[in-house]
Amino acid sequence: MQLDKFSDYALRVMMVLAVRAPERVSAREIADTFAISENHVAKIATVLVREGYVLSQRGRAGGLCLAHPAAEISVGAVLRQIKAPPPVAECFAAGTSCRILPACGLRSPLKDAQEAFFTVLDGYSLADITVQQGALAGLLAAAS
Amino acid sequence: MQLDKFSDYALRVMMVLAVRAPERVSAREIADTFAISENHVAKIATVLVREGYVLSQRGRAGGLCLAHPAAEISVGAVLRQIKAPPPVAECFAAGTSCRILPACGLRSPLKDAQEAFFTVLDGYSLADITVQQGALAGLLAAAS
Repeated sequence: MQLDKFSDYALRVMMVLAVRAPERVSAREIADTFAISENHVAKIATVLVREGYVLSQRGRAGGLCLAHPAAEISVGAVLRQIKAPPPVAECFAAGTSCRILPACGLRSPLKDAQEAFFTVLDGYSLADITVQQGALAGLLAAAS
Repeated sequence: MQLDKFSDYALRVMMVLAVRAPERVSAREIADTFAISENHVAKIATVLVREGYVLSQRGRAGGLCLAHPAAEISVGAVLRQIKAPPPVAECFAAGTSCRILPACGLRSPLKDAQEAFFTVLDGYSLADITVQQGALAGLLAAAS
């Protein structure tokens, strides 16, 4: 069981923005921090902007910033809302081909398990997971 | 958040064995049922045999079968024990490179969320998820 890469990096992007708030941070800088492509950060940012978690401003003084205070952003809600492509199992996607699906008893337990996973993360805000703000700022500065 | 493919198919393999018990089923037949390679089924079977969930017998009358009654096999325990390769996030693996790990506040919540996921599945046995035994047997017969 794993957090998909898209969700993983979406949370990392938001952690950077929380630590640097209220500054605007460029996608380039975030990409360098995590050694991923700027294109990947841009895709994540598009979804976070669409879901109302992040603001994006173009231009020289532009960049990304949080749309709300970190304390008001729930980690669980972010993960539920960004609806990253891979579902908990193949059979939760459209056009599934698993032969035993019509009589499978695993689907409902898996759904409940997924819900329990998110419920735990509903209990944490973005501020909670960036509580070591000073140390995080130092690590980010060293990385970029 | 998703169940990794290895765990997903490990549960499917065990569901087939539960439905067909006490019969022995060949890796070839299971592979055909789910349209995956026999090699993939063999890899899964090796882990399930090692963890004591499945017995494997070579030869003409050989094949795979459950090592215990389905009602005594916990779905959560199987998932915890097979320890499928991808951890919940990159930072749970050895040699992680995430720059913010030393001050990251997401690791502990993610660990708790993963535990909650498994705890829900601890509440189900292999017999629970194959309760529609007759219907499953029909679907398996049609697929192979």
